[in-house]
Amino acid sequence: MQAADTDWSKTEKKVAQAAFKTAYEREVSALIKDVRDHSSTIVELDDLWRLHDFLSARRHDIDGKYDYRYSVLIFVFARLLKEGWLQLGELEGLERDKLAKISSLARMQE
Amino acid sequence: MQAADTDWSKTEKKVAQAAFKTAYEREVSALIKDVRDHSSTIVELDDLWRLHDFLSARRHDIDGKYDYRYSVLIFVFARLLKEGWLQLGELEGLERDKLAKISSLARMQE
Repeated sequence: MQAADTDWSKTEKKVAQAAFKTAYEREVSALIKDVRDHSSTIVELDDLWRLHDFLSARRHDIDGKYDYRYSVLIFVFARLLKEGWLQLGELEGLERDKLAKISSLARMQE
Repeated sequence: MQAADTDWSKTEKKVAQAAFKTAYEREVSALIKDVRDHSSTIVELDDLWRLHDFLSARRHDIDGKYDYRYSVLIFVFARLLKEGWLQLGELEGLERDKLAKISSLARMQE
């Protein structure tokens, strides 16, 4: 499936941008809360380096995941759906075909 | 100056090990406190990545610094002295010549 060829209408772009932003803010908030909660449990150097490893992995993950290019957006939304940062209802306004693809991809990744 | 040729007596080794451990524990405790205090101020993703950068730098620094080989120990102690993780008095028991070298190197690094 070549999502690169998919056209996005003006309305769809608005929906996509809002959903993308919502998911991003949700994941970032959860991550910050996680780190803040976790930091209070650090008692030795190994704990600190585990936090460092965790942040390295999350940074790499988030940098790669939030890629707002229309050519990959179907896949990005499928992943966000699968990971729970987005609900299918929040993509309402996209054309039926896109929603079906996103929904199907999210299930395939399970 | 070739510290590699320096001999360390049994007594000196005991003093050196204790001082090394003291400095290490001091620096690690300060770092953990620093990260724990700092974590509560994280409100956005950039703050989190700044913490990540900070931890990357500190990890690299600490991994390199605490090198307990007698060939480099004079330099290690000089640095710990200069950085305030160790006091000259805590190296008492080392021969006069070593103390003079450590003290002089610590001043040179300033």
